[in-house]
Amino acid sequence: MSRSIDLAVIPGDGIGQEVVVQGLKVLNAVLPQDVKLETKEYDLGAQRWHRTGDTLPDAELEALKNHDALLLGAIGDPSVPSGVLERGLLLKLRFAFDHFINLRPSKLFPNTATPLAGRPDIDFVVVREGTEGPYTGNGGSLRTGTPAEVATEVSVNTAYGVERVVRDAFERAAARPRKKLTLVHKNNVLVYAGHLWKNTFDKVAAEYPQVSTDYLHVDAATIFFVTQPERFDVIVTDNLFGDILTDLAAAVTGGIGLAASGNINPTGAFPSMFEPVHGSAPDIAGQGKADPTATILSVALLLRHLGYDTEATRIEDAVSADLAERDGGTARTTDEIGDALAVRV
Amino acid sequence: MSRSIDLAVIPGDGIGQEVVVQGLKVLNAVLPQDVKLETKEYDLGAQRWHRTGDTLPDAELEALKNHDALLLGAIGDPSVPSGVLERGLLLKLRFAFDHFINLRPSKLFPNTATPLAGRPDIDFVVVREGTEGPYTGNGGSLRTGTPAEVATEVSVNTAYGVERVVRDAFERAAARPRKKLTLVHKNNVLVYAGHLWKNTFDKVAAEYPQVSTDYLHVDAATIFFVTQPERFDVIVTDNLFGDILTDLAAAVTGGIGLAASGNINPTGAFPSMFEPVHGSAPDIAGQGKADPTATILSVALLLRHLGYDTEATRIEDAVSADLAERDGGTARTTDEIGDALAVRV
Ligand SMILES: CC(C)[C@H](C(=O)O)[C@@H](O)C(=O)O
Ligand SMILES: CC(C)[C@H](C(=O)O)[C@@H](O)C(=O)O
Repeated sequence: MSRSIDLAVIPGDGIGQEVVVQGLKVLNAVLPQDVKLETKEYDLGAQRWHRTGDTLPDAELEALKNHDALLLGAIGDPSVPSGVLERGLLLKLRFAFDHFINLRPSKLFPNTATPLAGRPDIDFVVVREGTEGPYTGNGGSLRTGTPAEVATEVSVNTAYGVERVVRDAFERAAARPRKKLTLVHKNNVLVYAGHLWKNTFDKVAAEYPQVSTDYLHVDAATIFFVTQPERFDVIVTDNLFGDILTDLAAAVTGGIGLAASGNINPTGAFPSMFEPVHGSAPDIAGQGKADPTATILSVALLLRHLGYDTEATRIEDAVSADLAERDGGTARTTDEIGDALAVRV
Repeated sequence: MSRSIDLAVIPGDGIGQEVVVQGLKVLNAVLPQDVKLETKEYDLGAQRWHRTGDTLPDAELEALKNHDALLLGAIGDPSVPSGVLERGLLLKLRFAFDHFINLRPSKLFPNTATPLAGRPDIDFVVVREGTEGPYTGNGGSLRTGTPAEVATEVSVNTAYGVERVVRDAFERAAARPRKKLTLVHKNNVLVYAGHLWKNTFDKVAAEYPQVSTDYLHVDAATIFFVTQPERFDVIVTDNLFGDILTDLAAAVTGGIGLAASGNINPTGAFPSMFEPVHGSAPDIAGQGKADPTATILSVALLLRHLGYDTEATRIEDAVSADLAERDGGTARTTDEIGDALAVRV
């Protein structure tokens, strides 16, 4: 295990700036003395785009490749046309670094507010495909802006892409106590992609007899997310369904302020990238109101990815303990939450 | 207004058979004496497919065209390969009869169980596009079953198709007390379709200054469905997002047993089709356990579509009253619920 971490930091937009500071604070606090942490900040996002028109120039993309991992705050601002930063920066990174595992754990921590009555026991992880589906940018528009316009979006799914994420999900399921994997798709309508996903899933399942499997249509899955979320252990699904389901998962487990994610390339060919599931929340930016916990939990995923399991667990335990003991009465600032967690780890 | 209704009935599979009986029972009970109701049952679904290999032959499609409306129970059975009946029967009807408005009201009735704590005040309607998006069957698979397989699904969106559903949604929003319309899409990723939807929405909005408007990404919308569903009045969205959101909406408003829908062609060129949102639920079929309320509420939508507003409202009021007064202790059979509602209307 390397005893140094060379981290690229992309604070990005809005509250991204604030939460990343806390993520680094906790990272510094949890790392053993002998691990050398180097960080380099990249100025990417809305401000940069307004200033220079750049979203992610080649030189910076090249430079980013040389880090051990990336920590990203949040990308997006209402002043930038929708899609420009998402496609030109965030998704560009996920695709360029072949982040085919978009890992999104969902856990209902003690003492956190869930909109669900009865506080079900929620502890599952969504393995979202990260490099295919309707996210590929395939598609176009014909006769744009006229009454005869036709706009298409193409979901691209390959055996190569589906099998690698399905295998990863089976590995993760096999390593968990409940050993259960649910495939979510919509194979009664999206029959071509659906059959590829289902056939691949069934084929790989034969190699993991210890893992129990299940299939749900995406619409039915949303029902179970609110009526029976405890039924899920590991979920594997496509890029778009994973996007939708993980926001819903975040909502039922106490909100987007706690939802961490990793964009992972398990081969190590490129650095993986860790980011909170939430967006840049321009409405509350700069006010110290953002909850940095999602970023701090993303730092835990980052540490686990780099082999620092003990430290990752210490962060997760600190978050659990912090939430369990906090005084529900007073809202804490971004900085106070970061300080509290840095002390605990 | 015509004083006769010529109704095609497709009970379909599983509990579809049982709930349709109750829908017709209540329809008979609510109709004024002078309205002549004729029904013709069509044997379509899994059994027919097993027997003959047919999903929806041309002759029956032609015959169905001549009815005033269609009442459908549910389609689908695990014994039939996924997609065969959905694409060959249900979606074939929606497309052949150009059901471009898929209308799905969501209301939290008194005294019904919602998984949400705090029982928010939910009363919104989703206007789901019904004839485009990823439901068109465009797409395919190359090198099927090999490690080099590529499977695609194409979402097709036209100015023609988007504008007509957006206009319909603005009309519906303008007619409601709160006059609020939310567009749900994912225009930061699906930029071609997203721009067409957003531009069309903004253009039509200018003609409805009395309607307040809002835009949400589909992932964010799922969050609000569980944290703040009371914020929604009318939602307009594409075929796939509408599919996902309306199952979630059904779940938060007391379950799929209460969710009604109409596949509507407002031009009258073809008959509209009314069906519960739920599926055929083979696990509980034939046991008298299915809740026919969703079908009965779909009959209310059918009546409103045909101009029988008073009768539609009587059904809706009966459902409200029935739910408010029911004894939470004992579960009623399918038949008992149908009887109770038939008496009330
Ligand atoms: C910002 C957007 C492009 C992104 C996505 O759709 O993947 C976000 O919603 C997420 O889930 O990380
Ligand atoms: C059965 C299926 C094809 C259908 C759909 O996806 O539209 C169903 O889920 C619905 O919502 O009516």
